[in-house]
Amino acid sequence: MFGKVSFTEKPQLRQPILIEGLPGIGYVANIVALHLISELKAKKFCEIFSPSFQAFSLISREGGIRYPINELYYGSPNAADKDLIILFGNSQGGDPKGQHHLCNQILDIAENLGCRFVVTIGGLRRDLAPAESKVFCAATDMKTIRAAEEQGAQVMQGQIYGVAGLLLGLAKLRKLTGLCILSETLGLFADVAAARSALQFMCKFLGLNVDYSRLDQAVEINKRILGSFSEPLPPEKRRYPTAI
Amino acid sequence: MFGKVSFTEKPQLRQPILIEGLPGIGYVANIVALHLISELKAKKFCEIFSPSFQAFSLISREGGIRYPINELYYGSPNAADKDLIILFGNSQGGDPKGQHHLCNQILDIAENLGCRFVVTIGGLRRDLAPAESKVFCAATDMKTIRAAEEQGAQVMQGQIYGVAGLLLGLAKLRKLTGLCILSETLGLFADVAAARSALQFMCKFLGLNVDYSRLDQAVEINKRILGSFSEPLPPEKRRYPTAI
Amino acid sequence: MFGKVSFTEKPQLRQPILIEGLPGIGYVANIVALHLISELKAKKFCEIFSPSFQAFSLISREGGIRYPINELYYGSPNAADKDLIILFGNSQGGDPKGQHHLCNQILDIAENLGCRFVVTIGGLRRDLAPAESKVFCAATDMKTIRAAEEQGAQVMQGQIYGVAGLLLGLAKLRKLTGLCILSETLGLFADVAAARSALQFMCKFLGLNVDYSRLDQAVEINKRILGSFSEPLPPEKRRYPTAI
Amino acid sequence: MFGKVSFTEKPQLRQPILIEGLPGIGYVANIVALHLISELKAKKFCEIFSPSFQAFSLISREGGIRYPINELYYGSPNAADKDLIILFGNSQGGDPKGQHHLCNQILDIAENLGCRFVVTIGGLRRDLAPAESKVFCAATDMKTIRAAEEQGAQVMQGQIYGVAGLLLGLAKLRKLTGLCILSETLGLFADVAAARSALQFMCKFLGLNVDYSRLDQAVEINKRILGSFSEPLPPEKRRYPTAI
Repeated sequence: MFGKVSFTEKPQLRQPILIEGLPGIGYVANIVALHLISELKAKKFCEIFSPSFQAFSLISREGGIRYPINELYYGSPNAADKDLIILFGNSQGGDPKGQHHLCNQILDIAENLGCRFVVTIGGLRRDLAPAESKVFCAATDMKTIRAAEEQGAQVMQGQIYGVAGLLLGLAKLRKLTGLCILSETLGLFADVAAARSALQFMCKFLGLNVDYSRLDQAVEINKRILGSFSEPLPPEKRRYPTAI
Repeated sequence: MFGKVSFTEKPQLRQPILIEGLPGIGYVANIVALHLISELKAKKFCEIFSPSFQAFSLISREGGIRYPINELYYGSPNAADKDLIILFGNSQGGDPKGQHHLCNQILDIAENLGCRFVVTIGGLRRDLAPAESKVFCAATDMKTIRAAEEQGAQVMQGQIYGVAGLLLGLAKLRKLTGLCILSETLGLFADVAAARSALQFMCKFLGLNVDYSRLDQAVEINKRILGSFSEPLPPEKRRYPTAI
Repeated sequence: MFGKVSFTEKPQLRQPILIEGLPGIGYVANIVALHLISELKAKKFCEIFSPSFQAFSLISREGGIRYPINELYYGSPNAADKDLIILFGNSQGGDPKGQHHLCNQILDIAENLGCRFVVTIGGLRRDLAPAESKVFCAATDMKTIRAAEEQGAQVMQGQIYGVAGLLLGLAKLRKLTGLCILSETLGLFADVAAARSALQFMCKFLGLNVDYSRLDQAVEINKRILGSFSEPLPPEKRRYPTAI
Repeated sequence: MFGKVSFTEKPQLRQPILIEGLPGIGYVANIVALHLISELKAKKFCEIFSPSFQAFSLISREGGIRYPINELYYGSPNAADKDLIILFGNSQGGDPKGQHHLCNQILDIAENLGCRFVVTIGGLRRDLAPAESKVFCAATDMKTIRAAEEQGAQVMQGQIYGVAGLLLGLAKLRKLTGLCILSETLGLFADVAAARSALQFMCKFLGLNVDYSRLDQAVEINKRILGSFSEPLPPEKRRYPTAI
């Protein structure tokens, strides 16, 4: 019980891309991952339980408690020749060593399924509310950076703390390629507008055909959303605007 | 000496319910557990010593030092068909990993004794003193949430840090059921009024017949109470208002 | 090199008393230990090196660097039938788990040498400079508390963080007896006045015949003292006021 | 993948001196190391990957992500009879235990290559901008301190946190000799002026003939420098002012 990786399935995937969606600044990655899981009717195949997580539990909107967990889903975007592995969860590592341990666990699983490209997502905190959330990027290689710039991203400078930074860094260490997408946000709440910027950019970048009109509706239910993050409903029950 | 679980007895218990009473916001859980131990003349059967605890010692009102410890008691409420396992102590885990370790130790013991239901208790911090401490709840399942709502609790939202959150979350991970009871408090001192709200709610919810009139008297000795938390007198010596 | 307990001697001691003198609030314990080592011409017999220490080095007044270390000395007070084990050093544990590990290492060594009584020393932080530093105490048992009260100490309330608290708590867990001596201090610098109160009280309590006139002189060199803590001169070279 | 020391070469070195250049206050050590690597065309022979590092990644000026890493280079100053081992990197340890682990790893490698002298470098934070950054020092032995004083350094007092302090302390524990060079800085940005003071002092102290005119030019590109720290270009591509 002191840490377990539990598979319900070992899926056969086509050149899968790992998309990181753990909670962080403005919950940008979390919203993007939740929307993708819902839109692609992605299927959960793996759960990670670990003493490396933060020492808390979360509560769903209905009052249901949810232990710290990371989950991996897979899904196939329409008309794409690649599958997605979506990392969703309610906790990052509880301390620096726990972050390293968690990131390496996730990369082990993804590599094992043939993943060679990793996308991490995060919020880029701003003191003033941005008129619209611009997207910044960093990547494992110049080719990916150039491609991101062509899609309108600006180049990020500095340091990226937490799983959005470390997961991509450790991916590079394993000779994987990948991109970090950061979206401007006040970071004070679950920022669906920032998530939309990140999602739109990612879909364009990866050539995904994902409907995000329902994410737009989600802006209004911003304040109600935090609870439901912790306990994602099964895909068949998720309907906007009530479910998210 | 670097961590030990020490049993004085392996009690035979009837469908026992674990009640968490470690120190936290407003010492709500600690007061409730101490009162229950006193009223039920509960018997200590297990002590947990661990390097996962915080790095301090506590002092009783008389100046007696007390190492970090968690203790498990069992007791039988009048006219109930269930026994209680009461977790009392003076320390939570000292860091996130220590919290995970401690919670799993406690659940291992409780499960081993046949426990299938867990109650955690905590304070819900407010900036203004509440007229009376309202009770909020979260639970492992909708049936328990509904039952708590029927008894007057409101549904909690957000995150619950520390053992009150993590213990219930990890209980759910083990397929146990359970309830978290949070009582509003300023959290600046040992808040007996908040503890009374939590205790009254818990007794109603569990169908316990516990006298809490003596807890009412304890309001006046609020400021004197903190020291004696750390060194519980044996039940036969505890008399209100001098003992608590 | 990743942690080592190194003995230069395994002394034969008469019912030795362990006296804790690690750096803490106002450097009270550190000053007391350093003075005792000097006055008793105590002899170092053990060095502890550990990755549990804080991540720093200290600099002596002359610029000499000093790795994190704990040292154990033994000495025989005049006309006493008991020997002293004096714990001196420049670092406590770097995190809660490190504190537990360090305290247990020290108690293992002391018990092994026949120690059954432990004295820990600390500063009790006050916001206003006390006219004179009053001494507060906590102990493992009521007999020791009463004896300390008879010598003029007041009973401490609350919690004692760090090695002064944890070491005594873990000593009690091992069925040792002992006393914690806390002396009021602003805690802003090496407080020799607070150290003198603690030292005078300890000598009276333990029946030690130690000259502390030279500690009095040390008040004037308060500001110069911090550096030399980190690199204790061998006893034969320590002469007040130049050496301390 | 959970921690690795990777050698590309085991160089034969002449009485090598280890020079620490990890990021810290004002990035003083980092700038000095980067300049030395560039000027001496030093060659990387070892990379350290560790879960002890901080949980982040860094981004180069061009947007390239860089995992936490420490690197060891070797180089031969003109007309010197000693080689240098230069420790460069983008992360210190993420917690106290990680710092101890990292420092011991580095010293193991250096000792193995015959190193008997260690130089650590750091910033000494000041609240007001110093007219010029004076150099302070601490050392493992009085002979080294005297030699540093003769070159104009003042003797440091107090404690040195992080790798600049701990590495030298642990070096002393291994009977190595060495010097810590601290340069005054506001510490708010990559302080090339403070780095120049430290570098000039070190070159004089070690008898190194290194051109630091190009470091002077680097003052103007202060603000652009931080990104490129994380991803040092290969020596042949580094040209001032564009490359640093």
